[in-house]
Amino acid sequence: MSRKSIGTAAERQLVGMFWQAGWAAVRVAGSGSSQHPSPDVVAGDGTRKLAIECKVTEAKAKYFPIDEIAQLETFARTFGAEPWIGIKFKTLTWYFLAVEDLDRTGTQFSASLLAAKRKGLLFEELIGIGR
Amino acid sequence: MSRKSIGTAAERQLVGMFWQAGWAAVRVAGSGSSQHPSPDVVAGDGTRKLAIECKVTEAKAKYFPIDEIAQLETFARTFGAEPWIGIKFKTLTWYFLAVEDLDRTGTQFSASLLAAKRKGLLFEELIGIGR
Repeated sequence: MSRKSIGTAAERQLVGMFWQAGWAAVRVAGSGSSQHPSPDVVAGDGTRKLAIECKVTEAKAKYFPIDEIAQLETFARTFGAEPWIGIKFKTLTWYFLAVEDLDRTGTQFSASLLAAKRKGLLFEELIGIGR
Repeated sequence: MSRKSIGTAAERQLVGMFWQAGWAAVRVAGSGSSQHPSPDVVAGDGTRKLAIECKVTEAKAKYFPIDEIAQLETFARTFGAEPWIGIKFKTLTWYFLAVEDLDRTGTQFSASLLAAKRKGLLFEELIGIGR
C-alpha cells in the first residue's frame, strides 16, 4: 500500500471504531490539501466533538510541522471541538495526545512512542473522558 | 464537468462560504459511498453544529430516497448536529431546508424550487438563526 492509502485505511479504521462505540465520525475530504484548516477525522457523541489529526508511522517518533498543529487548533477552536493528535505506531495501538503533550523540537512538534505510551490516551480513554 | 465534480465544486463553494462567515467547515470524504451514515458537509461555529446533505440540480425539483434522509438524521442525532438539506437550483442560490420542510412523495422526499423559496433559508439566515 502507498503511504497515502495506509493513512486512509487507518482513518477508516478509526472512524469505524467511533461508530462501534456509539459515536458518529467522518473522514475529512482533502484534509492535507484543502485551503482551509482541516483535521483528518471529526467525531461527536452528541455532547463532545473531537477534531483529530491522524498519523501512522513505522518510526519510533513522529514529527509535526508547527503549522500543521496550529491549523488543527484553529479548526478546533472555530468549529468547537477538542483538538487531538492520533498516532498509530508499529504497535498498532492508537494513542491520542493533546497538543500540550507534544514535545517541541526546534521548528517542529514531535511525539515519541515512549511519550505516547506515557502521556497519550488509549481509544477507550479518549472516548471515556471529559477533558 | 461531470455530475460528481459539479457536486464537489458546490460543496467546496459552501465550505468556503462558511469560513468566510467565520465558521469552520469540512467536506466529508466518500460521503456517498461510506458504510456509515455521513452528510456531505459538516460545519460549526463553536456553538452550533450543522450536518448538511448538498444537492445541485438543473431540474425544478429534487428527489431524495427516504434512506438518504434517514441517514442524515441518524448522523446528526448521533454526532450532535442540526440536519439540513442544502439545494442549489439553476438560480445558483443555496436554499437550506429542514427535513420537515421536504414533501413526502410516495417512497421519496422531494423539494421543489418553489417550496425551497417559500420554506427554505438563505445561507445568511441559516448561519444567523438558532433553531
